[in-house]
Amino acid sequence: MIGIFDSGIGGLTVVKALMEHLSGYDIIYLGDTARTPYGTKSSETVKKYALENTEFLLNKGAEIVIIACNTASSVATESIAENFDVPIFEVITPAVELSINTSHKPCIGIIGTRATVKSGIYEKKIKEINPQARVYSKACPLLVPLVEEGWINKPETKMIVKKYLHPLKVRQINTLILGCTHYPLLKNIIQKKIGKRVSIIDSSVAVASNVKAFLEKHREIDDMLSKKGRYTFFVSDVTEQFEKIATSMLKRDIHLKHVKI
Amino acid sequence: MIGIFDSGIGGLTVVKALMEHLSGYDIIYLGDTARTPYGTKSSETVKKYALENTEFLLNKGAEIVIIACNTASSVATESIAENFDVPIFEVITPAVELSINTSHKPCIGIIGTRATVKSGIYEKKIKEINPQARVYSKACPLLVPLVEEGWINKPETKMIVKKYLHPLKVRQINTLILGCTHYPLLKNIIQKKIGKRVSIIDSSVAVASNVKAFLEKHREIDDMLSKKGRYTFFVSDVTEQFEKIATSMLKRDIHLKHVKI
Repeated sequence: MIGIFDSGIGGLTVVKALMEHLSGYDIIYLGDTARTPYGTKSSETVKKYALENTEFLLNKGAEIVIIACNTASSVATESIAENFDVPIFEVITPAVELSINTSHKPCIGIIGTRATVKSGIYEKKIKEINPQARVYSKACPLLVPLVEEGWINKPETKMIVKKYLHPLKVRQINTLILGCTHYPLLKNIIQKKIGKRVSIIDSSVAVASNVKAFLEKHREIDDMLSKKGRYTFFVSDVTEQFEKIATSMLKRDIHLKHVKI
Repeated sequence: MIGIFDSGIGGLTVVKALMEHLSGYDIIYLGDTARTPYGTKSSETVKKYALENTEFLLNKGAEIVIIACNTASSVATESIAENFDVPIFEVITPAVELSINTSHKPCIGIIGTRATVKSGIYEKKIKEINPQARVYSKACPLLVPLVEEGWINKPETKMIVKKYLHPLKVRQINTLILGCTHYPLLKNIIQKKIGKRVSIIDSSVAVASNVKAFLEKHREIDDMLSKKGRYTFFVSDVTEQFEKIATSMLKRDIHLKHVKI
């Protein structure tokens, strides 16, 4: 199975992208809702949680693991790869590779949680590929709670998005990376506020196409993955809100299984 | 010592009120920042966290414990009282007692997290004392992240507060309970939006005066409490944000100690 974890509901945007790119592949999802959010926590704490989540997915039979959370991807990927011997995917590199190719003079904006932005990982990875690229980032810590409240189209959300994007807009970025798996749910507002000429890179879609390419190249791993269209959702805390948002996002009935991590 | 815990920074409003009401008493504070927020989580999960926090404070030498978090107060007080043999204070009853006395025809609004409002505990306790009281409540889940971001005076915060208070305003409440220890930090905006004729009950101040009255009555317990003006702050996750807000809120340098819960 393909194992995916996130701190909460954000990673469901990755599940959605996988359903489109790798239709029929069995997926096991873990939302660590008892300890959500990760983006305001220290990297040591997030690393500990990410290792526990990975172990849980492997015990449940995952053959590959996707870290569907930018915060965990930015601080915990190395630890996970050192500790477990399965292919690990994170959401940062695929988005970085896409962002470099949208313009011959990349001027890239990054939005994410406080922890992701503080890690500086996007800047580092972009500069490694293209040292001439200009990169600006902005932490947007209120967007996760706004999405988790379902305030997708409220005027207050639009104002807050506009305020957060303002410093990137004055830099005249031509590419914007949505550096948090919650943000694709706000993509329409973000596109409107940043301007239609700016290419938006959705890390959920980027990682899904990355996994697809990997499996096409590594048939021996692809053969191990079951493909019966089964989707299993575990959460470390059951709340109505999660079930509601998940059902509306994935457009199917979601039954949550409660687990202790 | 007086032990206090909260999911994060909200309980510092209780520390502040205690510094005024019981100046000089030693206080040990635990902010469970590794697992914050509590208000969006299930009651089983919050109960588990609250028991662990209480145990931590007792091991550190607390003689009485204040649950400085409305969510934990509403779902975990009973479990804590059953499991530990020290005086336990919660933030709900003192606010309820005050709210009943502000008007001879109480029409009381309550704002809090989703978990607190869902528990229905304020309504229950108010009706027990005065079955004629009219009570309306409204969950305001975005106020905690707004406070934790330090967006105290931003126009977006004012709009969101106004939107949340609207249904209470049309009910013409005469009393409003701030049913979350974060909310006193938004008291000015809340007063402005709900109208100056509405009495606002701050549960942080209510519990502090309650503890003071208790200690005046129970001299044997008061004698056990050390009074050297020492304040110790533990957090389960260290973030800059916490230190910054705590220092500005309590108007003194705060040094955080990191603990594993």
